[in-house]
Amino acid sequence: MPKARLRDLGITLGQLPAGPLNAITDVAGVTVGVSTIIRDQPHVARSGVTAIWPSPDVFHDFLPAGFHSFNGNGEMTGTIWLAEQGLIASPICITNTHAVGVVRDAIVELAAKRKIEMAWHLPVTAETWDGWLSDAEHFPVTSADAIAALEGAKGGVVPEGNVGGGTGMVCHEFKGGTGTASRRLPAQLGGWTVGALVQANYGIRNMLRCGHAPVGLEITDAVVPVPERVTKPKTDQGSIIVILATDAPLIPIQCQRLARRATTGLAWVGGFGSNSSGDIFLAFSTGNAVPMKSPMTNLRMLGMDECTPLFQAAAEATEEAIWNAMIAAETMTGWQGRTVHAIPHDLLKQACARYARRD
Amino acid sequence: MPKARLRDLGITLGQLPAGPLNAITDVAGVTVGVSTIIRDQPHVARSGVTAIWPSPDVFHDFLPAGFHSFNGNGEMTGTIWLAEQGLIASPICITNTHAVGVVRDAIVELAAKRKIEMAWHLPVTAETWDGWLSDAEHFPVTSADAIAALEGAKGGVVPEGNVGGGTGMVCHEFKGGTGTASRRLPAQLGGWTVGALVQANYGIRNMLRCGHAPVGLEITDAVVPVPERVTKPKTDQGSIIVILATDAPLIPIQCQRLARRATTGLAWVGGFGSNSSGDIFLAFSTGNAVPMKSPMTNLRMLGMDECTPLFQAAAEATEEAIWNAMIAAETMTGWQGRTVHAIPHDLLKQACARYARRD
Amino acid sequence: MPKARLRDLGITLGQLPAGPLNAITDVAGVTVGVSTIIRDQPHVARSGVTAIWPSPDVFHDFLPAGFHSFNGNGEMTGTIWLAEQGLIASPICITNTHAVGVVRDAIVELAAKRKIEMAWHLPVTAETWDGWLSDAEHFPVTSADAIAALEGAKGGVVPEGNVGGGTGMVCHEFKGGTGTASRRLPAQLGGWTVGALVQANYGIRNMLRCGHAPVGLEITDAVVPVPERVTKPKTDQGSIIVILATDAPLIPIQCQRLARRATTGLAWVGGFGSNSSGDIFLAFSTGNAVPMKSPMTNLRMLGMDECTPLFQAAAEATEEAIWNAMIAAETMTGWQGRTVHAIPHDLLKQACARYARRD
Amino acid sequence: MPKARLRDLGITLGQLPAGPLNAITDVAGVTVGVSTIIRDQPHVARSGVTAIWPSPDVFHDFLPAGFHSFNGNGEMTGTIWLAEQGLIASPICITNTHAVGVVRDAIVELAAKRKIEMAWHLPVTAETWDGWLSDAEHFPVTSADAIAALEGAKGGVVPEGNVGGGTGMVCHEFKGGTGTASRRLPAQLGGWTVGALVQANYGIRNMLRCGHAPVGLEITDAVVPVPERVTKPKTDQGSIIVILATDAPLIPIQCQRLARRATTGLAWVGGFGSNSSGDIFLAFSTGNAVPMKSPMTNLRMLGMDECTPLFQAAAEATEEAIWNAMIAAETMTGWQGRTVHAIPHDLLKQACARYARRD
Repeated sequence: MPKARLRDLGITLGQLPAGPLNAITDVAGVTVGVSTIIRDQPHVARSGVTAIWPSPDVFHDFLPAGFHSFNGNGEMTGTIWLAEQGLIASPICITNTHAVGVVRDAIVELAAKRKIEMAWHLPVTAETWDGWLSDAEHFPVTSADAIAALEGAKGGVVPEGNVGGGTGMVCHEFKGGTGTASRRLPAQLGGWTVGALVQANYGIRNMLRCGHAPVGLEITDAVVPVPERVTKPKTDQGSIIVILATDAPLIPIQCQRLARRATTGLAWVGGFGSNSSGDIFLAFSTGNAVPMKSPMTNLRMLGMDECTPLFQAAAEATEEAIWNAMIAAETMTGWQGRTVHAIPHDLLKQACARYARRD
Repeated sequence: MPKARLRDLGITLGQLPAGPLNAITDVAGVTVGVSTIIRDQPHVARSGVTAIWPSPDVFHDFLPAGFHSFNGNGEMTGTIWLAEQGLIASPICITNTHAVGVVRDAIVELAAKRKIEMAWHLPVTAETWDGWLSDAEHFPVTSADAIAALEGAKGGVVPEGNVGGGTGMVCHEFKGGTGTASRRLPAQLGGWTVGALVQANYGIRNMLRCGHAPVGLEITDAVVPVPERVTKPKTDQGSIIVILATDAPLIPIQCQRLARRATTGLAWVGGFGSNSSGDIFLAFSTGNAVPMKSPMTNLRMLGMDECTPLFQAAAEATEEAIWNAMIAAETMTGWQGRTVHAIPHDLLKQACARYARRD
Repeated sequence: MPKARLRDLGITLGQLPAGPLNAITDVAGVTVGVSTIIRDQPHVARSGVTAIWPSPDVFHDFLPAGFHSFNGNGEMTGTIWLAEQGLIASPICITNTHAVGVVRDAIVELAAKRKIEMAWHLPVTAETWDGWLSDAEHFPVTSADAIAALEGAKGGVVPEGNVGGGTGMVCHEFKGGTGTASRRLPAQLGGWTVGALVQANYGIRNMLRCGHAPVGLEITDAVVPVPERVTKPKTDQGSIIVILATDAPLIPIQCQRLARRATTGLAWVGGFGSNSSGDIFLAFSTGNAVPMKSPMTNLRMLGMDECTPLFQAAAEATEEAIWNAMIAAETMTGWQGRTVHAIPHDLLKQACARYARRD
Repeated sequence: MPKARLRDLGITLGQLPAGPLNAITDVAGVTVGVSTIIRDQPHVARSGVTAIWPSPDVFHDFLPAGFHSFNGNGEMTGTIWLAEQGLIASPICITNTHAVGVVRDAIVELAAKRKIEMAWHLPVTAETWDGWLSDAEHFPVTSADAIAALEGAKGGVVPEGNVGGGTGMVCHEFKGGTGTASRRLPAQLGGWTVGALVQANYGIRNMLRCGHAPVGLEITDAVVPVPERVTKPKTDQGSIIVILATDAPLIPIQCQRLARRATTGLAWVGGFGSNSSGDIFLAFSTGNAVPMKSPMTNLRMLGMDECTPLFQAAAEATEEAIWNAMIAAETMTGWQGRTVHAIPHDLLKQACARYARRD
């Protein structure tokens, strides 16, 4: 049975229409793969890798990209080159904090295996921390896990919830995970698609909002227990990575602009970048491509005013992707017997209903 | 009769307690002055200057400060020096876009008049555009206006609505303006105060949220007309400047962090940084001071985890300051007979009531 | 009699060939104008404005641009928008620190006068401080001076030395000023032109190098007196603004890259960004244009490896432009009877000869 | 026999005095370790790891730090957190490009092994590419190599030349490597020490300068062959990492300022940030420390003008460290029989002598 998504609960966020899959894969050419690591021996592991290919040929045809760090208590490799040249030249991975290195190197390994004619690679690997549910200091993620996620990537429906890098996540003190959503602009606004994929692992319960409903104040820890770690003030231990894709023809500096809009979607769910959060966002455009070693490339640049609806789409897709991560996630027990509860769908619906519009 | 504020309508946003004045002046030493220009001859002017003194002695004792540009279709002078050294060494002004220069130079003029022993000054002046209601191309703002705002600054209640730089503003297609709010953390969270002052001039009607009640969808243009300029997609012409003050002892890089949180408060009201928006935020700390020409200065640095409640306070103060700007603003008719309507308080209350919690 | 330039002294710096004029105007379409203010009554003024038009039609056809602040103890307006969108949409001015505002507003005024159909403008005005030779606190620069520089701009030979914004400059404790130079790449390296224009007002004597001959150690203050202000350690009061133009088709992020290379040229002359220096660089490309309100624009992007010779050209043009500023500058006496000596051409030649290659 | 250093050749660069060791370890508490990998079986490896401990207790007492990317065709992990909070909380490693991940994770592993009470770590690992002399795509660097470098770090004389991460370097088409140098300011300038450690792997022959002597034009490829890879225009494949240490009490934003000055030292040797170069610089201060989880920390901030001599020291130390890397490096033959020649000391002395001062 497929996992539920937010819209399956009758809840729709935002004003713009979703794409056909309501997923980052609505942007043509984008594929996603996951390696999920759930085992109790020899060490408890609730971890994994999520791989996103901006295009099948990204090793040869580079795409404009940009990033934004809303709160940089986290890691995303490759950003120094993104800031310099604004092109992404390899697939993107998201994993656990302790595994950023091995996964980053695995992308280089894959490039070497495929005999890509580049002397070196500066791949993007980002992370959030799954060490609450997973015995992270035993380093469960291997190069093989990363390669499997990379090689298993495909279009279509994107796995959500406790999968890939999102396996061991905690979000607003409920079970978090991997989620995705998209927006497709009406033709008169350009018809472009924006997709988001998030690894959601941030936030405290009482800030959680679903649309206009402060659901975190409804589904309190008296109803659904919160993980012990976050019961005291100031000890949130989260992060969120947002990957935004669009087919709108952007140049690199415009991708930076798009990436910043993930902040808005995050805010709408209740994230405000607590100190311990690594809230790092990356956006790329499939609407332009720069062939490796091309001495001159023709690009198209979307008009400046035309960017506004794209920005709104990015915010909305981020918001809904976070919710899809939480809705798909299932209650998980992990390291040291700790349990993180999924948000109960019925309680969420009830909570939203309490704030429904009435005349 | 004093102007209303959001809380006078029975609406309270956020979770943290406000300071005694619910204003940026709750941060000890901060003063605010305004010059308001409303006249119809020889040219229609709806403009002005807002001046903020981070401390009475900021020309001699510099304060840690940082800025963030969420969407940089705007101007804030002095930011190159803020990025370099992170100290603010003069009062801050906010005015109309076309008057950034004259107002910026007026701060230098004031420093010269006061015989400040600095060879040069790099003051901060920011702007939003009031050219819908004001005949901006006749440049109504003068150096004298700026000096008057600077010299008239005081603590206590801060003028809101159609005053100072906020005089001709439009916000979410209602009348915008100048607004302020504050948060004071409980003692166990440090007891620090964060104040916000905004010049709110951004946004489209249908994105407007009040505590996440989608009030912009309730008070439609059929009920309260929107300014003609913003009825078509992609033609929002706004901006918002947010000035954040805190007495928490921050170092410059931490002020940059604080400034970024204005993004969250803005998002909660419905801003997402449309292309034409200059959404630029500045934060300073009165908890440290660097005397001019001091060869070595002792600073205190707030702990990293201690910053989290401060960040929430900054987001909440920004959100409420925007609302205070709109609530205090009054319907204004200006250049070319154009009228921008204030948000009707009764309709706002009704709209919020429609989304109130019910069992 | 035209003023001398470095090459007139038989000294050639760098490895790449200069353009026909060895000036920023070698980039087709670039024009430069100056307003020079030299008077003793009612207040001593040694000041002015330099205007650079990136193209005759920059108000309508915006050009990719980017900036870098090597040491940000200075001001350049418009940078927040450059960082956001990477397009320059108006002419550029350089003036005295205290006049940044009036000159910046004058560009807006010119746009209004020409009825440019933009609601607002975010022009670039940069500065260095001429208050050693000029009674800056009497604010000699007016809007009319700026307009005159802007309207008087032309191609061809660029005025150098004590002209425009460079009038009252001091550079490496000799008389500084305005200077320009260019490089034209050989066809096999792309054939592109890079031009630099500097307002050079930074540096201490003993760091001055000419093609790495340590000429500042040769022409000591025993030979040519240094201005009193800079005889003690740590009291350098300088700045340098570098404007780089190229016809290579760059996108905005590449202009940022180019701007950073001014740092190298500056280092070759002996600048290292002392605390008090505002070393701020801007680069634009005439090889692409984005028409105002265009919903989609075709751009060309120079290949990444093709940028390397362009970077070298930027460094070399900056280096030689600084020297041209000093060579053209003449000894000046100004405020309070202070005199700043031009570098004696014969002594410079002798100093260089002492380090010439010998077998 | 100890390897030679630049000063052993009778060549002294810069104006400020060196520290006692003329090494980064002149900054008290800084230690350096190297793992050098030179083998031909099963695959040719010329690689390694260099580890720098900013202080023995950096895992518990964090130090202010900042970075600058002059040309970001490279990787330095941990920079997102440095940009956010400006504290370094773990040792720093430099290695080959392909090994950034494994080495970065090794620092986490070491922290886990030492039971550091931090949920996660965001360590700094930087790289330059050694794939000309080393069969990099067989990934010779292991976690054990990194741990060995980290655990073997010590004060005192720093290994230079073909060691650690610098083993397989090429610099200005001579053999490059690891180098270090320092400056100690005279007491009246503060008495602070600045040390630099570089991994020098950048540049083309004809740009190489030693002081004022254009030695790269003297020791041409007719005299000492250049590696084949760099004989054609536009194919430089280099990078340089610079680590700057100081005991001056800086705050994070001041460390960013210091880091930028490596650009100047690099320029003096002949680097200008070619497209393929990852010229990334990091500076830290041992003059302040922020204990882990401290809710409030007292810091000292060096006066702004006092930074100027520190900046000069950083530039000079960087310049000399690059030369020390080249002087200590020995001719190496590696992968595919390729040879990179060390710069012949006698030829260098002769080349400099040709440009010596003469009356």
